[in-house]
Amino acid sequence: MENYRVERDFLGEKRVPKDAYYGIQTLRAKENFPITGYPPHTELIKGFGYVKKAAATANTEVGFLNESIAEAIIEAADEVIEGKFDDQFIVDSIQGGAGTSFNMNANEVIANRAIEILGGEKGDYLRVSPNTHVNMAQSTNDSFPTAIHISALRLSRGLVTALDNLIEAMGEKEEEFDNVIKMGRTHLQDAVPIRLGQEFGAYRRVLTRDLRRIKRSVDHLYEINLGATAVGTGLNAMPEYIGRVAEILAEHTGMPFYSATDLVDATQNTDSYTELSAALKVHAINLSKMANDLRLMSSGPRTGLNEINLPSRQPGSSIMPGKVNPVMCELINQISFQVIGNDHTISHASEAGQLELNVMEPVLVFNLLQSLSVLQNGLKVFQEYTIEGITANIDHCRNMVERSVGIITAINPHVGYETAARIAREAIETDQSVRSICIERGILSEEELDEILDAKEMTKPGIAGSRFMYGE
Amino acid sequence: MENYRVERDFLGEKRVPKDAYYGIQTLRAKENFPITGYPPHTELIKGFGYVKKAAATANTEVGFLNESIAEAIIEAADEVIEGKFDDQFIVDSIQGGAGTSFNMNANEVIANRAIEILGGEKGDYLRVSPNTHVNMAQSTNDSFPTAIHISALRLSRGLVTALDNLIEAMGEKEEEFDNVIKMGRTHLQDAVPIRLGQEFGAYRRVLTRDLRRIKRSVDHLYEINLGATAVGTGLNAMPEYIGRVAEILAEHTGMPFYSATDLVDATQNTDSYTELSAALKVHAINLSKMANDLRLMSSGPRTGLNEINLPSRQPGSSIMPGKVNPVMCELINQISFQVIGNDHTISHASEAGQLELNVMEPVLVFNLLQSLSVLQNGLKVFQEYTIEGITANIDHCRNMVERSVGIITAINPHVGYETAARIAREAIETDQSVRSICIERGILSEEELDEILDAKEMTKPGIAGSRFMYGE
Amino acid sequence: MENYRVERDFLGEKRVPKDAYYGIQTLRAKENFPITGYPPHTELIKGFGYVKKAAATANTEVGFLNESIAEAIIEAADEVIEGKFDDQFIVDSIQGGAGTSFNMNANEVIANRAIEILGGEKGDYLRVSPNTHVNMAQSTNDSFPTAIHISALRLSRGLVTALDNLIEAMGEKEEEFDNVIKMGRTHLQDAVPIRLGQEFGAYRRVLTRDLRRIKRSVDHLYEINLGATAVGTGLNAMPEYIGRVAEILAEHTGMPFYSATDLVDATQNTDSYTELSAALKVHAINLSKMANDLRLMSSGPRTGLNEINLPSRQPGSSIMPGKVNPVMCELINQISFQVIGNDHTISHASEAGQLELNVMEPVLVFNLLQSLSVLQNGLKVFQEYTIEGITANIDHCRNMVERSVGIITAINPHVGYETAARIAREAIETDQSVRSICIERGILSEEELDEILDAKEMTKPGIAGSRFMYGE
Amino acid sequence: MENYRVERDFLGEKRVPKDAYYGIQTLRAKENFPITGYPPHTELIKGFGYVKKAAATANTEVGFLNESIAEAIIEAADEVIEGKFDDQFIVDSIQGGAGTSFNMNANEVIANRAIEILGGEKGDYLRVSPNTHVNMAQSTNDSFPTAIHISALRLSRGLVTALDNLIEAMGEKEEEFDNVIKMGRTHLQDAVPIRLGQEFGAYRRVLTRDLRRIKRSVDHLYEINLGATAVGTGLNAMPEYIGRVAEILAEHTGMPFYSATDLVDATQNTDSYTELSAALKVHAINLSKMANDLRLMSSGPRTGLNEINLPSRQPGSSIMPGKVNPVMCELINQISFQVIGNDHTISHASEAGQLELNVMEPVLVFNLLQSLSVLQNGLKVFQEYTIEGITANIDHCRNMVERSVGIITAINPHVGYETAARIAREAIETDQSVRSICIERGILSEEELDEILDAKEMTKPGIAGSRFMYGE
Repeated sequence: MENYRVERDFLGEKRVPKDAYYGIQTLRAKENFPITGYPPHTELIKGFGYVKKAAATANTEVGFLNESIAEAIIEAADEVIEGKFDDQFIVDSIQGGAGTSFNMNANEVIANRAIEILGGEKGDYLRVSPNTHVNMAQSTNDSFPTAIHISALRLSRGLVTALDNLIEAMGEKEEEFDNVIKMGRTHLQDAVPIRLGQEFGAYRRVLTRDLRRIKRSVDHLYEINLGATAVGTGLNAMPEYIGRVAEILAEHTGMPFYSATDLVDATQNTDSYTELSAALKVHAINLSKMANDLRLMSSGPRTGLNEINLPSRQPGSSIMPGKVNPVMCELINQISFQVIGNDHTISHASEAGQLELNVMEPVLVFNLLQSLSVLQNGLKVFQEYTIEGITANIDHCRNMVERSVGIITAINPHVGYETAARIAREAIETDQSVRSICIERGILSEEELDEILDAKEMTKPGIAGSRFMYGE
Repeated sequence: MENYRVERDFLGEKRVPKDAYYGIQTLRAKENFPITGYPPHTELIKGFGYVKKAAATANTEVGFLNESIAEAIIEAADEVIEGKFDDQFIVDSIQGGAGTSFNMNANEVIANRAIEILGGEKGDYLRVSPNTHVNMAQSTNDSFPTAIHISALRLSRGLVTALDNLIEAMGEKEEEFDNVIKMGRTHLQDAVPIRLGQEFGAYRRVLTRDLRRIKRSVDHLYEINLGATAVGTGLNAMPEYIGRVAEILAEHTGMPFYSATDLVDATQNTDSYTELSAALKVHAINLSKMANDLRLMSSGPRTGLNEINLPSRQPGSSIMPGKVNPVMCELINQISFQVIGNDHTISHASEAGQLELNVMEPVLVFNLLQSLSVLQNGLKVFQEYTIEGITANIDHCRNMVERSVGIITAINPHVGYETAARIAREAIETDQSVRSICIERGILSEEELDEILDAKEMTKPGIAGSRFMYGE
Repeated sequence: MENYRVERDFLGEKRVPKDAYYGIQTLRAKENFPITGYPPHTELIKGFGYVKKAAATANTEVGFLNESIAEAIIEAADEVIEGKFDDQFIVDSIQGGAGTSFNMNANEVIANRAIEILGGEKGDYLRVSPNTHVNMAQSTNDSFPTAIHISALRLSRGLVTALDNLIEAMGEKEEEFDNVIKMGRTHLQDAVPIRLGQEFGAYRRVLTRDLRRIKRSVDHLYEINLGATAVGTGLNAMPEYIGRVAEILAEHTGMPFYSATDLVDATQNTDSYTELSAALKVHAINLSKMANDLRLMSSGPRTGLNEINLPSRQPGSSIMPGKVNPVMCELINQISFQVIGNDHTISHASEAGQLELNVMEPVLVFNLLQSLSVLQNGLKVFQEYTIEGITANIDHCRNMVERSVGIITAINPHVGYETAARIAREAIETDQSVRSICIERGILSEEELDEILDAKEMTKPGIAGSRFMYGE
Repeated sequence: MENYRVERDFLGEKRVPKDAYYGIQTLRAKENFPITGYPPHTELIKGFGYVKKAAATANTEVGFLNESIAEAIIEAADEVIEGKFDDQFIVDSIQGGAGTSFNMNANEVIANRAIEILGGEKGDYLRVSPNTHVNMAQSTNDSFPTAIHISALRLSRGLVTALDNLIEAMGEKEEEFDNVIKMGRTHLQDAVPIRLGQEFGAYRRVLTRDLRRIKRSVDHLYEINLGATAVGTGLNAMPEYIGRVAEILAEHTGMPFYSATDLVDATQNTDSYTELSAALKVHAINLSKMANDLRLMSSGPRTGLNEINLPSRQPGSSIMPGKVNPVMCELINQISFQVIGNDHTISHASEAGQLELNVMEPVLVFNLLQSLSVLQNGLKVFQEYTIEGITANIDHCRNMVERSVGIITAINPHVGYETAARIAREAIETDQSVRSICIERGILSEEELDEILDAKEMTKPGIAGSRFMYGE
């Protein structure tokens, strides 16, 4: 008995493994694109499931698709959404053809499963045809982008949750460390005091803006081009169908999809992806800066800044016993670099669109979904394994403030920039404290200095000891 | 008589040209940073003028700055805003020190001009001190970012106007070309008909989204950190001052500036710049795609697509007589590449922020203001010199549709994908028309074909000749 | 019976699946880094196998490692090289810790396998310790980079072969198309004639330079830092060991590895990776331009340039019957974009090195090995499935030359730029041929034109018909 | 009297300022491209001077150009090389048209100056024509790239010198600091001792590789395409001319230029630029890492690492008296980011080449020459103002080593990884020294520890105190 079936298309025929749900076009693509070894993201597969289900439903409603065929397609699509056929999606993540191979893989899997449901044998496309029935009123050029939108939106929801949680964790640290006075640094040079809580507050705020940006940037993804068919003109898609299919998809997914006002525009332009990727990049930049800060502040323990302690997650060295490294922060840096690089690929792919279509969407979506996934995954462990467990070395932080020279800034309004500069240089050169020089030279009294150099006051707006300035 | 004066700071003394409004710190910076040869953007200079004016006003109001000094500073700052001292801003666009040299250049120019106004000699800083008076209650770390915000906002207004005009021009072409039927192409391969107006409509729409994105992305720039001083804690800035200075700046500039809720955050994070640059990058990508399309469509005239004509702007070749090239489109491509590269530099600079400050702001602002300027300048000439003058080769466009094979798609629903594919391949291989094969083989009648292959109908949603499908 | 064993490190204990060859540190890393879902590249695993084998060999030679333990380690390492334990390498491709988790994963797998070989039970690290024995005289900071070098070199060999083959294929087309005269285009505008073979010759040459660049850029990878241990000073590695281990590795791999002159330098700097990635990027840029050209030249068939035909690899559309797209070229574009984006991530990661180490190597190597793999995979199918099968539409190419206006350039030296320009403009405006205008106006004779406008002559240096210029 | 003259081309006529050496085509370009406000780099202008001079010389030799005209052109070109007409090069650095406007600007300036030399009036192109005479046997497509090659090579010579000097300065510091023992850090965490000299040695070595890479990457620029004319086929350029012009150019410039073997390849491919830019990018990445290190090591002075002191170059703060920042290092970071971003623009521009030409060369060369210039300028001041003046805080460095825990690594081979890890954790938790714990617990004797923990020995390969391991 044969363990294959023969399938045909207008370019010839091929043997397809008997048990395979995919068909000849999938096989051709598999052969043409042995590139990354990565199959499509499972969320993209689900996205196609939703598209095919919605299209079958709408096509039946407008009277173009036989109901029993539609029912079988819908059942098969549901199974695809559930992930039952993930192993049947075998075309590579990087591929030519603007996603036609993804779409045909989906069409073939669903057609063959529908044929089975209807009691037929896989490959009997007269019962259910991948093109005529499963792909009815669709082109790759509308079904693929719609599947991308679904998958990007679903992944972005997970990212938003992870980011929300991280923001909350930052807020808790902001509160916890509100009284930890430490040295503020600009140019990595001693500046003026700040509270550790203020630093975490700054992280919280920038992440909150990132969250808003990401949320805002996905909005445009609810606009879909199903019904656009080949070039956006809607050729071969009945107007009634176009009207219904977005509504049905919205219902099935629970996401407020709507049909694009201008299907030509929606088919050729990929700015919804670059917009989202750009928001992710801006977020990545902020994350990387934050991870750098945490690595700096936790540097040491003996020969670094040693202001904070990160939770120990794993032995840090195969040769240096007892060493523990800031691995979760380093992870965040690297995820950020990946997202920034992915944005670059996405930008290139977007710029390469031509006329009615952007054929570079496969590499674009590969990078976009990866960015969404790795960020979500990274933020979760960053929050749980690092941020939540940070502790402060309170005494060490305060000691550094006290022996710093930067506190001269508070004295500045009282003695003038030039005098203050001279005191500061002398302090550095003679390894003395600012305070002792001021007293020794009779520049300010102990009482005045107590008030002017009150560390906590220095972390708030205002001129400490301003009452001395006006001879109260 | 000497043609210089001697100035001092805590690092020593230097000879300053007698007529110079700048002083010793500017000179040091000039010597330290002989890098690009480009002085600061004139809009950045204006930005500093506004900052110093607002600060002097607020400092007087809260009683810290002597009124006559304040008046002189304000007058000098007004002159800076007017551009009278542009040639006194001599520090390089790329510089170390987080913009301190820009700020001190501004402080020194304004101090010396104020001294003159008050009847003194340049360099007599006991009258008006660059640090104590002009820079009162400020740090570079709040005054420089605020100046950047002002300049970026002013430039973005110009960009918004230019983009608005371009969108309008695209809309006019959309209308003008609404009846020009041409071949739609996907993968650069013949697809199905489309109207030239639809293509311009797609350009108009994506530009409209760009406009919205850019407008939205500058919103965050109205939040300023004046009063943050060195690290955002507001040390040495009175709370009353902080409250007032943003209001005053808003009044002077006519822009709705407000003080950041969290000055620490606002001082160390540069996401407002990366956000804007990202919006510009997304726009650049769309512009480049558009320019590529126009270059493709106007390719030829004899051996290219030759669908449209771009206005002749200049002889195109020093060796090929009569050649005219799509120079304005090529300009747009190049501006786009510049903006995309600038975004890269900006991202790197933003990621390099550390703790309380991002010291890489000079290179960041150099690239950001350049992106804003070149886009504005480019869009203006793109619209005037190219878009407005585009004409269509209507007959040639229609002829190409008629001899194309892609129109088989309209026949697809009537005969099925497999039969249609066979007709298409035969048409290509035998160099026949789809129509003649259909008739010859008796697949469809002339009457049916007239309706199914109606070119204009093919550019709209629906199945042409669907009445034949159901035996009407 | 338990299906796990308990392992301990200085941070605590964990249950390890009983059958697992990896141990507690691998498990911690698995938990810490659930990011991409991608395990290390199999070539990287092999790289570690080679490193551990060479180190065990050298350590025995210098008398620090017990011979029976060494033999077991070597046997285990050989199995790792053969790929027998690929499924035991479970830590994520993106991870914190500078590769310590990769290294410990290798150390643990090899230790446990060696324990088995010696008749013990997995987990009995007193027999063979991952740190003390397998990692002897090594740090992650020298063993991981060395493993990267091995894997990058092995992959680059495959790439070099693929590129060599592509160059040969281009050369064959260069020869085959040497007589196909076609229109040369600059600015996508008609310029002057060229031969299709010349175009393929230009592709061959630039690829040949790419090949040279890639070969040259991997040279630096033969320099390894084994023996550098933690920071490059070689602490805990005997000088005799350092001398031998590179020789042994060279012997085992058949690659001319040598010990770096300066191990500190070799441990902290990652320029060997950025150098290779940059060469790949330059190659990617050239490939993308080439793919774009082929897509342009094969555009149509009816409404594009239609100069060449690419082999049909798969049906191109799910809706447009008979459509075939340039999928292999589109694949090459996308691979190029991926490589360009990866270079960006690699650059960021390289720039983030600090002091004695670059901890961002995991993301760096993930992108670098991916670039090498996808290029190799892509070039192979590009050559076989596209380049080799290209055919030319010879008549159509020649016809386009003949009706072009660009050939006026050959007339230029005979009549002067200004006259030539006038003829050209008239030809375009009146839709006449350059030839007929010249004759009609009596500017040149038929005989002169036959010689001057000889198409093939125009594709070679020289002034056609120059004998007429000097009254021969 | 009129202050303008009227010039004509095939698109019409324009008024040119009477004194201007440029002509109508320059004016058109000026109007079309009001983009950056930056005129061409002066080195690019010189490059055109050399090209026009060499062409005129060769054209005369092969008998096509009248000798007296040639002499006038050569004299005019020499003046252009001397910089006498820099202010006559007024077209914008970013422009459409593949550099035709640069070329025509050069042609017009030289023609008009030659006319003057011959006793005529500017604009009298019958005497000397910009196209027929100055541009004889040339196209923009060969003369512009050749001018780029000349300018890039000249600038790269300056860069090489600057880099050479920097390497020497690093070498001096390497020697000077050879005995400064300090803590080595990986992951910013205390690792094991290293000598400051070793760190500077690592900088020296990576810079030396950068130098080699840059030198190697410019090699390809000596291959020029003069004689290629429009598309590389050499149409209208006599073979004798092609042979001579490169030789003459080599003679005039003192640079070993030679004619490209394949002029078609050399005209359409821009990999010589991307190759050079990639080398600059790799260098920039290394520089940025180095600048980051220096900023880290000089951080403080009181609350940072404070291992080294950078020369004070300028007051660092407008508000914090006495503060001095690492401005020259920050400058280097920013220059690096600029170069990295420029490489991005260059890559985009290179990828956008199409068929016989890359029309994006203007933006490409703008960025390339800028990268070369800013690097050269930056390296010079980095060396002089920072590297040469660095001093070490020797005692502080040694103290940090002594109280570090990382030195446990040297003890590792003596007591085993597990015991060593326990000692290390206890040291950190109880704030004790590793030494005291070892003695207290009787793990090692004072004598043994003196030898094992000898700091300088730890910075060299080997196991300190290995004689104790084998009971010597």
